[in-house]
Amino acid sequence: MDLSLHIDRRARTPLPLQIAYGVQSALIEGRLPPGARLPSTRALAERLGVARMVVVHAFEWLASEGYTETSRGGGTTISKGLILPQSPPDLKQAPERRTDRLPPTSPVVDFRPGLPALDSFPRTEWRSALNHVIRNAPDDAFGYGPIEGLPKLRRAIAEYSSRTRGLPFAPERVVVTAGAAQALSLILRVVHVSRALAIEDPSPVPVHELAHLHGRSLLPVAVDDDGMCTGDLPSGESAPGVIYVVPSHQYPTGVVMSLSRRLALLDWAAKNNAYIVEDDYDSEFRYDGMPPTALAAMDRANCTIYVGTFSKMLCPALRLGYLIAPEPLIDRLLETKWWTDRGGPVIDQLALTHWLESGSVDRHVLRTRKLYARRRNALVSALGAAFGARVRISGVPAGMHLMASFDDLADDEEFASRMMARHGIALYPASRCAIAYTQNKNSLIFGFGHLHEEVAGSAISIIRDELLRV
Amino acid sequence: MDLSLHIDRRARTPLPLQIAYGVQSALIEGRLPPGARLPSTRALAERLGVARMVVVHAFEWLASEGYTETSRGGGTTISKGLILPQSPPDLKQAPERRTDRLPPTSPVVDFRPGLPALDSFPRTEWRSALNHVIRNAPDDAFGYGPIEGLPKLRRAIAEYSSRTRGLPFAPERVVVTAGAAQALSLILRVVHVSRALAIEDPSPVPVHELAHLHGRSLLPVAVDDDGMCTGDLPSGESAPGVIYVVPSHQYPTGVVMSLSRRLALLDWAAKNNAYIVEDDYDSEFRYDGMPPTALAAMDRANCTIYVGTFSKMLCPALRLGYLIAPEPLIDRLLETKWWTDRGGPVIDQLALTHWLESGSVDRHVLRTRKLYARRRNALVSALGAAFGARVRISGVPAGMHLMASFDDLADDEEFASRMMARHGIALYPASRCAIAYTQNKNSLIFGFGHLHEEVAGSAISIIRDELLRV
Repeated sequence: MDLSLHIDRRARTPLPLQIAYGVQSALIEGRLPPGARLPSTRALAERLGVARMVVVHAFEWLASEGYTETSRGGGTTISKGLILPQSPPDLKQAPERRTDRLPPTSPVVDFRPGLPALDSFPRTEWRSALNHVIRNAPDDAFGYGPIEGLPKLRRAIAEYSSRTRGLPFAPERVVVTAGAAQALSLILRVVHVSRALAIEDPSPVPVHELAHLHGRSLLPVAVDDDGMCTGDLPSGESAPGVIYVVPSHQYPTGVVMSLSRRLALLDWAAKNNAYIVEDDYDSEFRYDGMPPTALAAMDRANCTIYVGTFSKMLCPALRLGYLIAPEPLIDRLLETKWWTDRGGPVIDQLALTHWLESGSVDRHVLRTRKLYARRRNALVSALGAAFGARVRISGVPAGMHLMASFDDLADDEEFASRMMARHGIALYPASRCAIAYTQNKNSLIFGFGHLHEEVAGSAISIIRDELLRV
Repeated sequence: MDLSLHIDRRARTPLPLQIAYGVQSALIEGRLPPGARLPSTRALAERLGVARMVVVHAFEWLASEGYTETSRGGGTTISKGLILPQSPPDLKQAPERRTDRLPPTSPVVDFRPGLPALDSFPRTEWRSALNHVIRNAPDDAFGYGPIEGLPKLRRAIAEYSSRTRGLPFAPERVVVTAGAAQALSLILRVVHVSRALAIEDPSPVPVHELAHLHGRSLLPVAVDDDGMCTGDLPSGESAPGVIYVVPSHQYPTGVVMSLSRRLALLDWAAKNNAYIVEDDYDSEFRYDGMPPTALAAMDRANCTIYVGTFSKMLCPALRLGYLIAPEPLIDRLLETKWWTDRGGPVIDQLALTHWLESGSVDRHVLRTRKLYARRRNALVSALGAAFGARVRISGVPAGMHLMASFDDLADDEEFASRMMARHGIALYPASRCAIAYTQNKNSLIFGFGHLHEEVAGSAISIIRDELLRV
């Protein structure tokens, strides 16, 4: 009999529980067969150096659970009737989780797009918003919140989207989500599920993946200098049911969809009973003038679902975003949301409401817009200085990324691997975003929101040296 | 032409944007037809009482968007080529959202089960955990966290479940979720989706709903004093693929599954290649002795998915829980989780980690366990004093609810409606939790975690008066 009990006096687990769990493990692992006799409480207490009552408590629990029975001689034995669980079949053994491992090398400079300036997240203000909320919220606020988000937050979002984007929607049409990812996932799960999803080509890889995971067929539509080529959308039987677009700052090209295309898209959607998903993830960061009109602001046919996020405006760690959907879709979206999270974190929602209402968000956006404009200008200058007329840059009027196309770049994937391996500089090939259309392999996406000017600048010099082999 | 522009100087929207959005609305609503001539900037500025530059900025934006063109005489007219969006068809109009309306009457006393003592949520300690985290976290913490949860939190959860429940699992098997609801939803989406879900009968209504929403067929299995009647589980072709159980404190009956049944269930699952979902939502609140062994602690065949939550232990507003799954399922669970939230809120996860590591959670559980024990005792006494031998109470050794069966209760649903209508007391009929088996309609579920003793006590008197018509 191999009881091999160990006691750890520094552990937080109470001693009787340590003993009980030790016996239980020995039993489950087959080291204590049914019928085996346990030592007396006195002997075991002595061996372990604990008070006898500690062992008595442990043995009481073992008996009450049915693990042990008292034998005629007064001793304690493992119950005879126990069916011990099967040993694990070898095939269920599996290696350590992949995601727990670090990537082979961590980049020294990372041009990853979509990351805001994490080092300028206003910690002090966010702390004070949380403190305010936790101090003053009614007790109810610590319970379950409504699936659709707190009424106060929905009102604040409706007000915010009205004054910054001209959206005329009532708070009842706002659904608070766990970021834009959840919003998009809910939409793909609910809206015209048997019809194709039309998508700009190129477009963000996570959207391709999401569509794939949801088993939706993708209809890629080309993008030119006016945005999605809406004339290519098929009508009738093969009309897609949902069109995903980023009209204010297409990803990755940065193109703005022209007014006539926007109106044509709305018209097409109304005629084909389709929904448009308008992803408007970075309109806050428009550097030269006011942001272009949102599709949702021009939609009289109730066919647009507007998706906004606080991940870019504040920080991704918050996991809060929203969608504004036509009334007939709200119930189905909420039913689906109920499965996945039963409503978002209430305290965070309250703090965000406080931020929106107090104007902190506006001040933060103003501050970071200036910061990003500076970083954008520095990056554009660095690219210009390094490559002159041999680079073309697009998408600079807004957001936190630009796309650069190089005369001297033949294979963006190969070059990105080379830069990572040789210099630890992470680059993002634009050709990855292509679906059906042949994408030139001469473009890279540069995220600059989180990158200090001097870091980006010196990385551009290294890129030039490598690309031009000077 | 009806431009009807209004300026609100107190609004946060900049004046040029107010004017631009005003013109845009008039245009979209058809009040400004293509070709219509806008007033001069000077005239409009005078009419609105703003500086002329304000109107110039607005008009520049309208022109850059393509809404307007400059006519030969130098005036500004609405572009002729615009396809204005369709008017909304009447059928897309819909009434206000149902969930925005208050319930007809709010209960005065609410015996709702599953709500912890929200008024004893340790606000000060939670604030200081958040403050600590926001002050000290590296910048990266404000970015996206890993889908599976922060490595630190997964380690802390593995440690916690080991010392409180004897679970022997590595952190790599822990997935942090948005509460138990998300955990269950992920499991239903991923595990043996073509096979039935076996469930205790009666069992929690949200689990019935979740199964229904996921389109899974339900196999109800009776519950007796030893818990789920595992002998009733069919083998072979019709064997369910997933068995959902609450072995440590069945809901709503409060029965503890006996050791022999637990072992039989594990054995059955291993033989039938099925998974067991062990919902262990309230083991922290065990009043008389140590909690019963978790199924997951006895499972050598890797067939148990353990689901825990911080909603009961701390508060539902947090929306954090976890599952501990066999290694081969982790990737698929995470892939599905990626659709729905792209990882949970990082700051909250860090604060929770801090709480688990610092021992704050243990102290909080200890405090609330005493509080709940007091509330439970008071409720049991009040029921005993009011009904004597005419009531039978079950499920009292743990958790935050008990079930009471009354000799004098014929129809729990009818009685609950009556109590709400006449006295504003919300009661929860146990028969609602039944699926296939005929449930006696003489039982009510009493949640007591959030209810002050005196409130619960006086409500019991009113219930007695109404039920016994004294």
